[in-house]
Formats: sequence, structure tokens, C-alpha cells
Amino acid sequence: MAQKAKAKNLLFRPHFKTHQSAAVGEWFRDAGVTAITVSSVQMANYFAKHGWDDITIAIPVNILEINQINALAKKIKLNLLVENRDAMTQLAKFIKSPVGLFIEIDTGHNRTGIMASKTNQIDNLFEIIKQNPAIQFKGFLTHAGHTYQAKTRHEIYNFHFDALLKMRSLKSRYKKDWPDLIVSMGDTPSQSICENFDGVDEIRPGNFVFYDLMQLKLGSCNFEDIAIRLVCPVIAKHGSRNEITIYGGAIHISKDSIINIDGKSLYGQIVVRQGKEKILLDEKNYLCGMSQENGILKITYKDFHLINVGDLVEIIPVHSCLTANLMGSYYTTEGEHLPMIPKAHEHSSSRAKAST
Amino acid sequence: MAQKAKAKNLLFRPHFKTHQSAAVGEWFRDAGVTAITVSSVQMANYFAKHGWDDITIAIPVNILEINQINALAKKIKLNLLVENRDAMTQLAKFIKSPVGLFIEIDTGHNRTGIMASKTNQIDNLFEIIKQNPAIQFKGFLTHAGHTYQAKTRHEIYNFHFDALLKMRSLKSRYKKDWPDLIVSMGDTPSQSICENFDGVDEIRPGNFVFYDLMQLKLGSCNFEDIAIRLVCPVIAKHGSRNEITIYGGAIHISKDSIINIDGKSLYGQIVVRQGKEKILLDEKNYLCGMSQENGILKITYKDFHLINVGDLVEIIPVHSCLTANLMGSYYTTEGEHLPMIPKAHEHSSSRAKAST
Repeated sequence: MAQKAKAKNLLFRPHFKTHQSAAVGEWFRDAGVTAITVSSVQMANYFAKHGWDDITIAIPVNILEINQINALAKKIKLNLLVENRDAMTQLAKFIKSPVGLFIEIDTGHNRTGIMASKTNQIDNLFEIIKQNPAIQFKGFLTHAGHTYQAKTRHEIYNFHFDALLKMRSLKSRYKKDWPDLIVSMGDTPSQSICENFDGVDEIRPGNFVFYDLMQLKLGSCNFEDIAIRLVCPVIAKHGSRNEITIYGGAIHISKDSIINIDGKSLYGQIVVRQGKEKILLDEKNYLCGMSQENGILKITYKDFHLINVGDLVEIIPVHSCLTANLMGSYYTTEGEHLPMIPKAHEHSSSRAKAST
Repeated sequence: MAQKAKAKNLLFRPHFKTHQSAAVGEWFRDAGVTAITVSSVQMANYFAKHGWDDITIAIPVNILEINQINALAKKIKLNLLVENRDAMTQLAKFIKSPVGLFIEIDTGHNRTGIMASKTNQIDNLFEIIKQNPAIQFKGFLTHAGHTYQAKTRHEIYNFHFDALLKMRSLKSRYKKDWPDLIVSMGDTPSQSICENFDGVDEIRPGNFVFYDLMQLKLGSCNFEDIAIRLVCPVIAKHGSRNEITIYGGAIHISKDSIINIDGKSLYGQIVVRQGKEKILLDEKNYLCGMSQENGILKITYKDFHLINVGDLVEIIPVHSCLTANLMGSYYTTEGEHLPMIPKAHEHSSSRAKAST
């Protein structure tokens, strides 16, 4: 991905929300990366502590975190994201330290962002941006996350190209007022397979660091590109229903699923260890269900003997971001332990928190 | 639940996997609880450190954790669960410290356990149990988790009564050889609504500590019994599609869902704060989708004005166990912070671990 960005003269600002690990971050530094993307102030603080000084928080600003944002913006080059007048007004009022600002554009994902055609809403934001000189407008940012709903690779190309045109039209419209504005795009499917990035200045893919079965199904990667597995002990075998139980469930893998060839929900594929050899079982064998700590593997009669109680099997997850987040650290295939961001046990009133 | 157990002369051994908190555990101690259930060795170690000395690990024993099990069994009264010959053989070979042993019976959930009718398999386990005097047979344990698939309360009664009969028949069959054997049952739906526990000695419900929307849908609880909410900041409003975006997603709430009245997936219901007042919005307003850090609320035109950017809304989760596990701690309505079990950042080779 770093090579692709370089070849196309794009700033490569990878999203670190998938791996959430300072140790994995160093791999990116080795590839020449100096600027990153995260999805929370908490994550920005963690990576800032680990030497990253150019960070974009690519989620519409949560104004309740203004104190933490001000504190962090004193220390590093921090970029924020805004998509509505209310948050913009509050930000302009309360931000004290210099920050870069992106306006989020909705190019079809319909989650957050201003529709590219609603330039009056964009103009409104500019009026407020100008009120506070601490805010430096950086450009337009989009996450074309609807590529995750694509049914074919062709559809990914279409979604990407449509988003590209929308971003380019905004760039030309506002270039006279903001000659340095940049266009930032960031979803793994399009950035893995598309080649046309004319008019784009920055890309922010994240999931590609590990990929997963969802990306494989979309056509963003090949099987051998998937670089994460959950190693699980086998605790029970039930031949009468072709099922094997692993110690590994919803609190380890997460419940994201894709539809398998048999029309049922698939939560992971299975790699069996045979001595030093590893065998990838076909899709007739899969993780078919989970409770909190248990997973159920559906295993064909042919392969049932390959797995025994006390073995370790490897599960290839459907959504690597969620599995990584649940596990909290990694081991490399060489056995090195890679810690991730520590889970916050002190929650401030400004972030999501559980209340009993 | 403690009162119900007492009235029916049942040992109340609540499952602590839902709350995973020593602080919440103290509430149970205040209600007279002295014996508990957990779902992992890690959880057993955590509660043992917090003064619990009678713990059942209610998941089929993971023999790869034998060293940790031996270490813990030296310190407390530890009960293990077995359901197959392979694990039983290994356990009998390697267990050094005295442990209690339950045989898991499958009463219809079809996840783990020996079918009640397969007494030859049970007899086989007894042959192995007898080989190691450190192992003390305690009785038969079942989790009638198929009550979670019940479509009516009536079906919960049926599943429970069927499981009860199976457990009772095993008790009478083996009572002459093991006069002290007990029958242990443990699922929140049946233990919340059923009244007939004749022949049962112990109950192990867990989820009832907080309940959730899934339990409400099953009829196990009323709305006012649900004692957990995720408080989330509002970051965007999109009137054109009646959607509001919160900072709170799959890594905070988890992706368990139920089917809403409109046939779509519902991931949570919404409570709006109006000054000191709290308003529960009806099911036409709900958490309809999530990405890693974001959630999308579908909000009716009528209620759209009740929620604004910068507000905090409260999400009632579908599955409280998973939400609690993701958040890692609680605040009480009085503002007290209740920590949970720290997430392990050092994974041993004997438990599930992420591999990159």
C-alpha cells in the first residue's frame, strides 16, 4: 500500500484503528509513514505517546471531548473532522490550540458527512471556520464505506469512481478560496483494487494491514494476504452432529459474519495444525455459531478426524478490526508479543460508558 | 433471585461472567452468596483474588490450562466441568490438587454436554474419575441455553421442564453409587420465570444481574428490570434520512441484535435525557446499525428534536454480557466507578490468542 501511494504521489496516512498497536505502528514507520489516522481521541493520545506527531481523528468531532482535544493539539499536529454546524460552532468557540480541520463529505456511504451537492452547508461551515484563527481548513475527507456493500469488484470500481468525481468537483469549486486544500479518501476495498486516484491527495486505508474474510469476499485481497488468526483450544467433539467446540467465542472473535456457500452465517474459517504443517479447511468447515466464550465449528465427516480435544485450531476472522480489539494483543508467528492500546478502565463522562 | 433460591431450598451459585466485576460481586455477598460460577480460569483467578473460595468453571475443561488449574485448586474449592473421554483422561492424569467435578449434560441446547440418554458415555467417565482420588464427583450440570431460542414464555416452561425431567432421571439412576450427587441448572430465562425446581439442588443464572433487550423479548424480565445502559455522545444528525449518529459502535456495544417490529435488526433501544428526566423512546426509535466506533439511531420525525449534537443518549443493549465485556467498567447511577476484571495483555499459549 505504501508503494502504491508513492507511485501515485499520494500522502499515505494509514488508519491505525485496525491494529491499535504501537509495535505494529513501527512497521509502518519502517515503510516511510509519518502521518496517521485514528478513530478516537483516546487512540490519538496513545499513538502520540508513541512518537506520532501528525494525526487525523477521522470521526466527526465529539465536542464533549474538547478539553482532551485542546490538550493534545498543544503537543502534536492534530486534524479534526466536522460535518455539521452545531459541532463546528462549538469547536470554533472552545478550541484554543491550533488544529487542522477536514470537512467530511458523504459520497454515498450515508453514515456521516455532508452530501457533496449540499455546498450551501459547506459554505455555512466556512463562515464559522473563519471565526477562529486556530482552525486551519485542510480539505475534504470521505470514507466511501459503501464499498463494503458491493456485490462485485466492478461495483467497488463504480462506487470509488463516483466518490472520486464528487470529491474532485468540490476541490475545483473551493480551490480558488483555499488553494492548499486536499482531498482525502479512505476505505480498504477501493484502495486495494482501484488504480485511478486522479485529484486525490491522501489515502487512509486501515483494514488492509491484516485483511480478513469480509475483504476476501469483496475481492480486496487474496487468502494468503490475510495476516491474522485467532488460535483457539479445542474442548469438545460431537460426531453425531459434526460439531467441534472451541474455547473462543463472542468475546474473543466478535459476531460479524458473512453468508457461507450453504446460505448460513459464517463467523470464521479454520486452519488445522498438523505438526509443523498448517491446513486450510474448505468452506464446508467453518465457525457457525458462538456464545460468550464458546465457538461451534461445523466440520465435514471427511475432516472430522483432523481435530481433537486438546488441539489448537486457528480461526481466520470475518472482521479483523473487531477480533483484534477484543483480544488486546498479538503474537507474531515468530512468537513475539505485540501489545495494543491498553483498555481504558477509567472512563470520562465525555466518552461512551456503561452505566448500571 | 437469591430469595427465590432460598424459598425453593436451592444453592444459589450465580454466574459472574455477565458483570465480571469484584465490586458487583460484593452486592451478591451482601445477599448471602458464598459460591459462584465463572466461564474461564482467568475469571476464576480474578474472583479468587477477591476473596471467593468456592468457584465452578462452567465450561468444559480446557486441558491446556492444567497448570493454572492445579495452581488455583491448591488455593480454593474449585469445581470443573467435563463432557468427554479425552479431556477426562487428561484431567485424571495431570490433576494434582483436589477438585470437584461436574459432568455436563446436554438437555437440548446442543452446544456441549453428554445427552442424558447416553448413560454408557457417563459410565465411561466414572471409570476414569475413579482412577484419581483428587477428583471428587459432584454431580450433573446443564445449561438449558435453548431457552434463548424460545418463541413464547410457554416454550421456556416446556424446555425447562423437559431438562428438569432429564436431570432428575440421571439423579435417580446414579444416586445409589453417588448419594451426595447434586443437580445444577443455569439459564436466566427459565430461572427467572419457572417455579418448578423439584430435584434441582443448585441454580447458576448470570445475565439476570443486568438483564437486557433479549431477555425482555423472551419474557424473562420487564423493562424496568434492565439495569445497564451505554451512555453515548451524539455527534451528527441527518434529518433527510431520520438518522442520528452516536459515538458508540461495535467495539462498545457489540453486534448482537434482535428483530424489531419493522422486521429489521435492532441493536439497542434509546433513552433520552431531558434535564433530570429520562424518556424511553418507543421501538420506532432504535439503534439500527454500527461500524467500529459509530452507531446509527433511526429516529422518528416526531422525536427527532429530542436529540441534539453534543447530547448524551443512553443505549439499552440487546446483550448486556457482551456490552459489559467491551466497556471494561461501570458507573453506577450515583456516579461510583466499578472496575471489572482487567483485560489480559499477556496471553499464554493455553488460551485463545490473536496471531498475526
